[in-house]
Amino acid sequence: MSEKLNQLKEILGEVSDLQHAGSVLDWDQNVNMPSGGSEARGQQLATLGKIAQEKSTSEEVGRLIDDLKQEFEGADSDDASMIRVAARNYEKAKRVPAEFVAEQAIVTTRSFEAWVEARSKSDFSIFRPHLEKVVELVQKYVSFFPPADHPYDILLDDYEPGMKTAEVKEIFNNLRPKQVDLIKKISSVKQVKDDFLNKKYNEKKVWDFGEAIITKFGYDWNRGRQDKAPHPFQTTFSVNDTRITNRFETDNPLSTIFSAMHEAGHAMYEQGSNPAYERTPLAGGTSLAVHESQSRMWENLVGRSLPFWENFFPELKKTFPSQLDGVSLKSFYKAVNKVEPSLIRVNADEATYNLHIMLRLELEIGMVDGSISIKDLPEIWNAKMRDYIGITPPNDAQGVLQDIHWSYGSIGYFSTYALGNLVSAQLWEKINVDIKDLDDQIRKGKFDSLLGWLREKIHIHGHKYDPQDLVQKVTGSKIDSAAYVRYLTKKYSDIYGL
Amino acid sequence: MSEKLNQLKEILGEVSDLQHAGSVLDWDQNVNMPSGGSEARGQQLATLGKIAQEKSTSEEVGRLIDDLKQEFEGADSDDASMIRVAARNYEKAKRVPAEFVAEQAIVTTRSFEAWVEARSKSDFSIFRPHLEKVVELVQKYVSFFPPADHPYDILLDDYEPGMKTAEVKEIFNNLRPKQVDLIKKISSVKQVKDDFLNKKYNEKKVWDFGEAIITKFGYDWNRGRQDKAPHPFQTTFSVNDTRITNRFETDNPLSTIFSAMHEAGHAMYEQGSNPAYERTPLAGGTSLAVHESQSRMWENLVGRSLPFWENFFPELKKTFPSQLDGVSLKSFYKAVNKVEPSLIRVNADEATYNLHIMLRLELEIGMVDGSISIKDLPEIWNAKMRDYIGITPPNDAQGVLQDIHWSYGSIGYFSTYALGNLVSAQLWEKINVDIKDLDDQIRKGKFDSLLGWLREKIHIHGHKYDPQDLVQKVTGSKIDSAAYVRYLTKKYSDIYGL
Repeated sequence: MSEKLNQLKEILGEVSDLQHAGSVLDWDQNVNMPSGGSEARGQQLATLGKIAQEKSTSEEVGRLIDDLKQEFEGADSDDASMIRVAARNYEKAKRVPAEFVAEQAIVTTRSFEAWVEARSKSDFSIFRPHLEKVVELVQKYVSFFPPADHPYDILLDDYEPGMKTAEVKEIFNNLRPKQVDLIKKISSVKQVKDDFLNKKYNEKKVWDFGEAIITKFGYDWNRGRQDKAPHPFQTTFSVNDTRITNRFETDNPLSTIFSAMHEAGHAMYEQGSNPAYERTPLAGGTSLAVHESQSRMWENLVGRSLPFWENFFPELKKTFPSQLDGVSLKSFYKAVNKVEPSLIRVNADEATYNLHIMLRLELEIGMVDGSISIKDLPEIWNAKMRDYIGITPPNDAQGVLQDIHWSYGSIGYFSTYALGNLVSAQLWEKINVDIKDLDDQIRKGKFDSLLGWLREKIHIHGHKYDPQDLVQKVTGSKIDSAAYVRYLTKKYSDIYGL
Repeated sequence: MSEKLNQLKEILGEVSDLQHAGSVLDWDQNVNMPSGGSEARGQQLATLGKIAQEKSTSEEVGRLIDDLKQEFEGADSDDASMIRVAARNYEKAKRVPAEFVAEQAIVTTRSFEAWVEARSKSDFSIFRPHLEKVVELVQKYVSFFPPADHPYDILLDDYEPGMKTAEVKEIFNNLRPKQVDLIKKISSVKQVKDDFLNKKYNEKKVWDFGEAIITKFGYDWNRGRQDKAPHPFQTTFSVNDTRITNRFETDNPLSTIFSAMHEAGHAMYEQGSNPAYERTPLAGGTSLAVHESQSRMWENLVGRSLPFWENFFPELKKTFPSQLDGVSLKSFYKAVNKVEPSLIRVNADEATYNLHIMLRLELEIGMVDGSISIKDLPEIWNAKMRDYIGITPPNDAQGVLQDIHWSYGSIGYFSTYALGNLVSAQLWEKINVDIKDLDDQIRKGKFDSLLGWLREKIHIHGHKYDPQDLVQKVTGSKIDSAAYVRYLTKKYSDIYGL
């Protein structure tokens, strides 16, 4: 029987190699590739994807998994977990016909192009017929699976294995009124000054400052690197090569520093995955929400905390003396935590961010179950923006057209961003129980206990536990908004004197 | 039948995608990869190679090729050429058992490590047992093929399709006494002064100067880029993405400029390949010798010519006023063409370079046919160095251990470097017939007629013609040393006043 396990591992190892090779090609496309290279690159990525798909859904894999499932039933070993995850991936992938995958690739390529044009012209009508097709395909995708409590469950499961729509809705229904209430309170008091954040900052100095911070965090440069790209992202080629990208925006210069912390949070999760899981489906982060809990923790719970800037602000001031002339630590801390209802999700502060997500989740659920018609999307979007955040988009580019996700068929993804915020706060409460002097350590620029805790409790497990099980195991409860509400309330009460 | 052609093209297209994906991974390994990434990268490259090999030697490919060969027999169309090249590749690959390829990978990985150690300690005995195994495997490889006139023919054919050992020997036997004679003459007259080449030059300015030159040559930056790497090389991801690497050596600062010209020569060949050949075995350069003819032409026949520096020297002097203070155009031209018998092939000048190659070819032939025993290599090496170049290596690191090639099993490669030199001169004579005012154009920094000629006569054909046929087609004769001897004699008679 162990011969069969070796056979399965060998095939899945090759699938993993193909996927990681694809990641290298994708990274290169974002970081280095000359403009001429894109057509051939698309073809190369398609070939790698196709072969990985063929290999992972072969009848041989099916037979091996069937036999091994029986042998390992009920066991909790790494091998048993690997077989469980492999079986789930296999059963999902087998349900989706190759022709469907090919059709989807064509539809979403066109849809992406239409979205780019629609957004640049701020004209939803250009995107609408394409989005209708994308949603049709998404509904067809759902139809390949046995009926779930809600059709959206099928989609969510691809990003958050085991998570149900009803669970997410309940979590968000609890959270929404509290966040709406908080931002109303904040808007009624004296606002925070942050003009010094928008002065001219030297790009290289900002970049280096971000790198100095994530070095202190514990990002391992022997197993990673940071490059410039149009959008910040993290990518994994192996546990020993997990890279991040970043950018510099003249009109938001210090965002580079927070992006570095965010992406390093993702990368340190991947760097901490059990090396024994390499080339198996257990390698890497277990879900998008847990991944986001790591990135948001380093970016926000650490990187926008007062103790953190008690340590780093003097150095920052030394680096940018003219820009920060006369700015106190407290003013700086307040500025980087300024709450301001805004149109664009990716620029949103911690108090409003989740509301952007809830809006999207509701629209997605409506599109998938047919209760919302695509033509009504812009209007519903704008109405919800008014309700939740209190502002109305002046145009669709800054409204319903702002995100790339739907254009490439990614429906079911958005809620993981908000869930990640919630998990980060749940973990943070537990960490502060386990590491009593965490604030003091952060105040001294020391992060090894924190990273050690995350490595032991989260990172090392890779994909072994599903997200809800992992959060339960570590914090004693499933994903829940209470800790995040406590965190937001305390932080903003202090900053805004509520 | 055209259905079968499409099927074959589809499979070979995927093989090409896998190979190019491997090239991206390899480039990244040389240019970007953090040290931690190497183990997984080796595994990923092995998987891509294995799948490409499986696909290209599948029975389906065999059947398709058999059927298509019949249909296209005697035709000269691109499709017929593609089938001919595909058939040859297939028949070769099928002869080599997968277990042999696997064994060779293991042996050469160890042998490479032993070579690194042996070279650093200048101790041939560390490398010797590994090289013995490598040569045994090479002999075994030869045994998979039907007997040839000489066993070395089998090896040579992998790098120079269709070329025979006897042909190369005859060419080199003609050439050797003339080159030996030339360097003897040169050594007996007044030597050239080149101390100003070894002053301190600013790395970025040198790098930029090299890029300015290859931009004028016509290297297309929308379809390529230059990066820093431990060794200069050129690599192809598609006809629209062919990249080069380069390095800066403090003790040989201007070599960066000549390396840029050399690698751009390779890259422009690949950029000029017929786009219709993409994802087929006809894409890219036809052989290593023809490739080297392009790189050496731009580096030497163009880049070390007097008309070239008539145009670029004033700018170079403006860029490095203190280093080149008081240096005349003529002195500079002489300095970059200085002849100096030296120990290391990669640093050799045009007059001695081929002799380094001939020495290696003779040793390789002897190793393969068994007439030279590995234990005697260092002694034979040193004796030939004395005979051909007039100096004796003080140790094996600067002698028999200097090149990487044998360590990874690459036997049959070296002669292509010298053949490339010869072809470059043959082409150059023909170009100067077709473009009467070429020198004048170069003197004005204009290279479009030259590149246009190369594109039309050489580049566009990709792999359609074997090297001997291509050279014959373009110059009217096969590969031959006469033009190169004329070129060397004229150039050095002028420089050294012979």
